[in-house]
Amino acid sequence: MSFRVIRTEGRARRGEFLTAHGPVQTPVFMNVATRAAIKGGLSAEDLERLHCQVALCNTYHLHLRPGPEIVREMGGLHGFMDWHRPILTDSGGFQLFSLAQLRKIREEGVSFSSHIDGRKIFLSPEESIRTQSCLGSDIAMAFDECVKIPSPYAYVEEACGRTYRWLERCRDELERLNALPDTVNPGQQLFGINQGATFRDLRLRHMEQIAGLDLPGYAIGGLAVGETTDEMYAVLDYLTPAMPAEKPRYLMGVGTPENIVEGVYRGIDFFDCVMPARNGRHARLFTRTGSINLKNEQYARDPRPIEEGCGCPVCQRYSRAYLRHLFKTEEILALRFGVIHNLWYYNHLMEDIRVALEAGRFAEFRRDFFALRGREPTE
Amino acid sequence: MSFRVIRTEGRARRGEFLTAHGPVQTPVFMNVATRAAIKGGLSAEDLERLHCQVALCNTYHLHLRPGPEIVREMGGLHGFMDWHRPILTDSGGFQLFSLAQLRKIREEGVSFSSHIDGRKIFLSPEESIRTQSCLGSDIAMAFDECVKIPSPYAYVEEACGRTYRWLERCRDELERLNALPDTVNPGQQLFGINQGATFRDLRLRHMEQIAGLDLPGYAIGGLAVGETTDEMYAVLDYLTPAMPAEKPRYLMGVGTPENIVEGVYRGIDFFDCVMPARNGRHARLFTRTGSINLKNEQYARDPRPIEEGCGCPVCQRYSRAYLRHLFKTEEILALRFGVIHNLWYYNHLMEDIRVALEAGRFAEFRRDFFALRGREPTE
Repeated sequence: MSFRVIRTEGRARRGEFLTAHGPVQTPVFMNVATRAAIKGGLSAEDLERLHCQVALCNTYHLHLRPGPEIVREMGGLHGFMDWHRPILTDSGGFQLFSLAQLRKIREEGVSFSSHIDGRKIFLSPEESIRTQSCLGSDIAMAFDECVKIPSPYAYVEEACGRTYRWLERCRDELERLNALPDTVNPGQQLFGINQGATFRDLRLRHMEQIAGLDLPGYAIGGLAVGETTDEMYAVLDYLTPAMPAEKPRYLMGVGTPENIVEGVYRGIDFFDCVMPARNGRHARLFTRTGSINLKNEQYARDPRPIEEGCGCPVCQRYSRAYLRHLFKTEEILALRFGVIHNLWYYNHLMEDIRVALEAGRFAEFRRDFFALRGREPTE
Repeated sequence: MSFRVIRTEGRARRGEFLTAHGPVQTPVFMNVATRAAIKGGLSAEDLERLHCQVALCNTYHLHLRPGPEIVREMGGLHGFMDWHRPILTDSGGFQLFSLAQLRKIREEGVSFSSHIDGRKIFLSPEESIRTQSCLGSDIAMAFDECVKIPSPYAYVEEACGRTYRWLERCRDELERLNALPDTVNPGQQLFGINQGATFRDLRLRHMEQIAGLDLPGYAIGGLAVGETTDEMYAVLDYLTPAMPAEKPRYLMGVGTPENIVEGVYRGIDFFDCVMPARNGRHARLFTRTGSINLKNEQYARDPRPIEEGCGCPVCQRYSRAYLRHLFKTEEILALRFGVIHNLWYYNHLMEDIRVALEAGRFAEFRRDFFALRGREPTE
């Protein structure tokens, strides 16, 4: 068993997940390095300084460029990026849904045109897993069909069935690859992905099916794609109790700091989101009391760091006035500083959550977290 | 006297220039941080790691944004950037020549339209020095008129006369400002700038005039603006012997590694150029044997660093294959890595030059430097 729950408080869990590149302390936020780099000019060295535990890379993007064979030759993503802590790779399923053109879904797999050059490409469960095996990530995600919300019930049901059959094929292919003598990371583990849009019975039935495969972890996919936050929380409320308690739970693509605290409250262990890096590149910076837009005139002569007391490498040295100048003059350094601060914020939010859980004080942490923002937790 | 020549070899000099923020070992390459940041996402912390001795910032750009008063309030550029080693500020003269629109030159100063928003602005010797005083640099450059090459003799002669009268006004204004009780950096020193295009008699006459003002240093301006490399070397050949031997000599805006070695050979002490950062952002990376274009297909599977044996933070960890991928996918990290490597290369080229001069082996160094590139030094 590669996951253990160290302590619980209500539905929330403090856990540890073991990978071929060391343990992951949960709840964890994974830092998104889509094309084997964090957008905004951050390197593996920066991720180490930001106390990032897991880097998340993307199979769809890396399949297109530079291609799985080159990454494999460079020792997988760990060698390619020179990042030697855990890596999770997304399967490409979500990008087929959000990026690819002329997508055609069949039982065998998905044919599509590359969003870069229109080139025809075919991705199947086996092909996605083969690519992820070349990438050598510690956690490979199942190749699934992510349906948009809203979608007709009958279509979602059909997609859930296909996603389950694809999951079995993913599992079989990964077992085969992990047994080969020259596999980059034979300790690669597969997480299944639950789908079902906002249809409770489909979500629950699909979860029961995939749980039966006894995989190392389970993700909730197809959320944060159009539904309201309340709808998302409602899904978590009925779904996490139906997930295997002894396996880590990953809420894909979520979310704001508030979403994360509420997700932990509902029993989620893994999170990822492009938001901190994207917002950071647009001068929207996170603080304990909410986010601030550093392009605002009010910061032009502000000698304080982004957030007083923040230990990030930016707040340790630079003023809001300097950062605002960098954003206003569109210096690349502004993007880098914004992303560094925001990822530090997210990684340390998770650390604070873990400390609170260890002390049995998560309820108090959650109340204070929302109070600082002048808001109430849900329920 | 703030400059001393430690050792000479032919016309080449190994020296030390004292500033209010510590000594500068010469020959030195100044790292260009135009708008108080190195393009490509490098911070003061990065400059420290790259062994940068002097950051060069630009009066014209900082005058427009964020404006001198804000920088002054933040403790000058040293406080603003959190960079506590020497800073040189260019006067804005060159940018008026290269960037500003609707430029009108009068004895009093230059009126122009901002290249950003078309706003009408007036810059005079006094205004340039007042701005540089707010910026608090260690070396302020004189406000000069940089004429293009070729220009008519009569016009260049007129511009030289004006530049000399402006230099006297710069000196007087800086003396006045340095004596005020609330000056950011009362140790700010003024360098005069020689002009005269490629007219030998004008260059020499102007140099003799400005040398008479006994300033802390002298720059050669108006080169690398259209003349050939041979014409530039010819100017240096007759000009450096006419410059005060006991003052540092700064060849503005120059140049390639080859230009720098040839400049040192001709008695130059200070250099600056946007080339290493600009080339770095375009995947053109410097090595001992010349520069390579990392976008080339041949590097797609190359596990070696940019240059074997290079001690820069990029070469210490990352492969050409990874960097090529970052450049091809237009990751911002590619720009950062390219600039880090190239600035390291330049700063360490200067270190090698200084070591060679100290050992009395600069002639040998110069021969080997060109031999590695399959080329010959000049003469």
